[in-house]
Amino acid sequence: MRLVQLSRLDEKLMRLALKEAKKGKGYTHPNPAVGAVIVKNGKVIGKGYHKKAGMPHAEREAIKDALSKGENIEGSTMYVTLEPCCHYGRTPPCTEAIIDSRIKRVVIATLDPNPQVAGKGAEILKKQGIEVITGILENQAKKLNEDFFVYIQKKRPFVHIKIAQTVDGKIATQTGSSKWITGEKARKYAHRLRKEATAVLVGVGTAVKDNPELTVRNFPSKKQPLRVLIDKNLKTPLDHKIFNKKAKTVVFVSELADRGKIHLLKKRSNIQLITLPLYEGRFLIKDVLDSLYKMEVMHLLIEGGKDVITQFFKEGIYDKVSLFVAPKIIGEDGISSVGVLNIKDISEALKLQIERIKKLEPDIYLELYP
Amino acid sequence: MRLVQLSRLDEKLMRLALKEAKKGKGYTHPNPAVGAVIVKNGKVIGKGYHKKAGMPHAEREAIKDALSKGENIEGSTMYVTLEPCCHYGRTPPCTEAIIDSRIKRVVIATLDPNPQVAGKGAEILKKQGIEVITGILENQAKKLNEDFFVYIQKKRPFVHIKIAQTVDGKIATQTGSSKWITGEKARKYAHRLRKEATAVLVGVGTAVKDNPELTVRNFPSKKQPLRVLIDKNLKTPLDHKIFNKKAKTVVFVSELADRGKIHLLKKRSNIQLITLPLYEGRFLIKDVLDSLYKMEVMHLLIEGGKDVITQFFKEGIYDKVSLFVAPKIIGEDGISSVGVLNIKDISEALKLQIERIKKLEPDIYLELYP
Repeated sequence: MRLVQLSRLDEKLMRLALKEAKKGKGYTHPNPAVGAVIVKNGKVIGKGYHKKAGMPHAEREAIKDALSKGENIEGSTMYVTLEPCCHYGRTPPCTEAIIDSRIKRVVIATLDPNPQVAGKGAEILKKQGIEVITGILENQAKKLNEDFFVYIQKKRPFVHIKIAQTVDGKIATQTGSSKWITGEKARKYAHRLRKEATAVLVGVGTAVKDNPELTVRNFPSKKQPLRVLIDKNLKTPLDHKIFNKKAKTVVFVSELADRGKIHLLKKRSNIQLITLPLYEGRFLIKDVLDSLYKMEVMHLLIEGGKDVITQFFKEGIYDKVSLFVAPKIIGEDGISSVGVLNIKDISEALKLQIERIKKLEPDIYLELYP
Repeated sequence: MRLVQLSRLDEKLMRLALKEAKKGKGYTHPNPAVGAVIVKNGKVIGKGYHKKAGMPHAEREAIKDALSKGENIEGSTMYVTLEPCCHYGRTPPCTEAIIDSRIKRVVIATLDPNPQVAGKGAEILKKQGIEVITGILENQAKKLNEDFFVYIQKKRPFVHIKIAQTVDGKIATQTGSSKWITGEKARKYAHRLRKEATAVLVGVGTAVKDNPELTVRNFPSKKQPLRVLIDKNLKTPLDHKIFNKKAKTVVFVSELADRGKIHLLKKRSNIQLITLPLYEGRFLIKDVLDSLYKMEVMHLLIEGGKDVITQFFKEGIYDKVSLFVAPKIIGEDGISSVGVLNIKDISEALKLQIERIKKLEPDIYLELYP
């Protein structure tokens, strides 16, 4: 009975740590969003979260918070949403800070996703006689950093495909008319997705036709995602919004791209050009993702168009699909959200799981996972 | 204060009457599903529902129930989900039964939808000194008989389109492979829709290719819906399930249909053939609906295929769309749920409202209304 109560209390406090972690969501890349809470004699004496890569980790933020209030940390319990690090990265290891503070109990939501590291931080703490509990609200903690987990384990960006379509799967009419398929609430939510991404990618078709800026405007955000344009021939007009100074842009071009335009773009400080080889007239998704991984793009939001999205689906490289569905019907002469996949038998259809349904009236939002 | 409490009590008892009404749902066509509850001194002394056209109405069933238990109805309150009738139909008017029973208060959820009748039943009761309250849980009562309301007001069957598709709007792969797009729960729910329909309609393409029986099998039901086949050339093989003896079938044929096949079908007691004229090679939806209206088809469930559904969408004749969505992707080379609508601007897209979202794992079910 006492154990059940203790575990409920642990969950309650871990929820507080998760709430802290969420404050950093979208700003910590390529680091995870982490929160920590310090509790002594049933009272929360300190809390903190990781704000940005290079800044202190959540554990140190919470310790600093407690100390700044004149609290005595010795003998306290720390709740932390991810296993404390035990290596020197951009900052010194958190295990040291915990040990030095004489914290006597550490409750961890989930271990470090890196199989070479997982458990080592916890082990070091245990060796110092600290009681370590793991797995409290583990699923929530993993979900919060789903992008970080994929980035670490698969050594590529978390690939998040965003589609806004009608119930019959169309993203535009036959003439390309698409403004707007979804309503205001859905469009606002889409800006939240941008805020949580490291980078937002579109293909040349979307860049030329829709002239999107790809910045976060409809949702509070302290940063802009990196913009990524796939444009082998560099067809996008240089005065299009994707090149403006509101954010940085990476452009993937091929040897076919116009030298003059490349020269002009190179002069702009916010633009980076990357030349990739073509295979049968296309870039390899692997090459694009490798480049972005090297640039520490942890969470890549793919916003279209159909051809780009289809290529990711075809190659089976996607970790999450955010589907905004408007209760409208365009008919089969409209433009489909997903292109030709050459599926013959229904058993070969791409299979996803609906993990979340959210009403964004008049539309709905579906969170799908492979 | 007392009024608020009274109205809450009224709602509670009306909910009971609605629960009664639902017992008859699907079995009363072309009559509505109606429930009634009789309350005296705070005690429910009788309840009943309309079981089937030609059988007593809910009011009489509730009175009979109370009397069979030896209750004294005089001075009681009756809760009834639809305004009591005041004319001689297949049964004598319910207003008479209420007056004769000396019920002193009648609470009605919604008036009769027929504008020529609405309010007259209530008026007759009032003239006899009976207190009449209307509008308690009116929306729920209207929703329960949405099909009946359309049938009476538009003088045509309630047109209910059912689609089972992938999230990208496909009902089959390019080869026609479609078994099964949705899971067991969704398919079971689709049988419930059949139970609640008077008739289930398919076009010749679906009848030939999928060979559906169109009966209720996966859901408890005391009746089978009428099956309706649109087959101008009578191409459906005579040994296909749609003609079997499990239910009645109406077949719409044209002058082009094979005489020999017509002759053979005419011998079967469960088959009715109706010849309609063709206009540009098609039947008019109006002609089909007129015929079915004359046969007292109140609720018509359209199960496909794409061409039939597209015709209803094109002509704007649909009252409800039941959309089962499987979290699968087939791609644009699959078969679309809705055909060519020739929509140029996004503002011309058919607009619906999502009134209900239900999880039927792994799928979802959307109830859409124009």
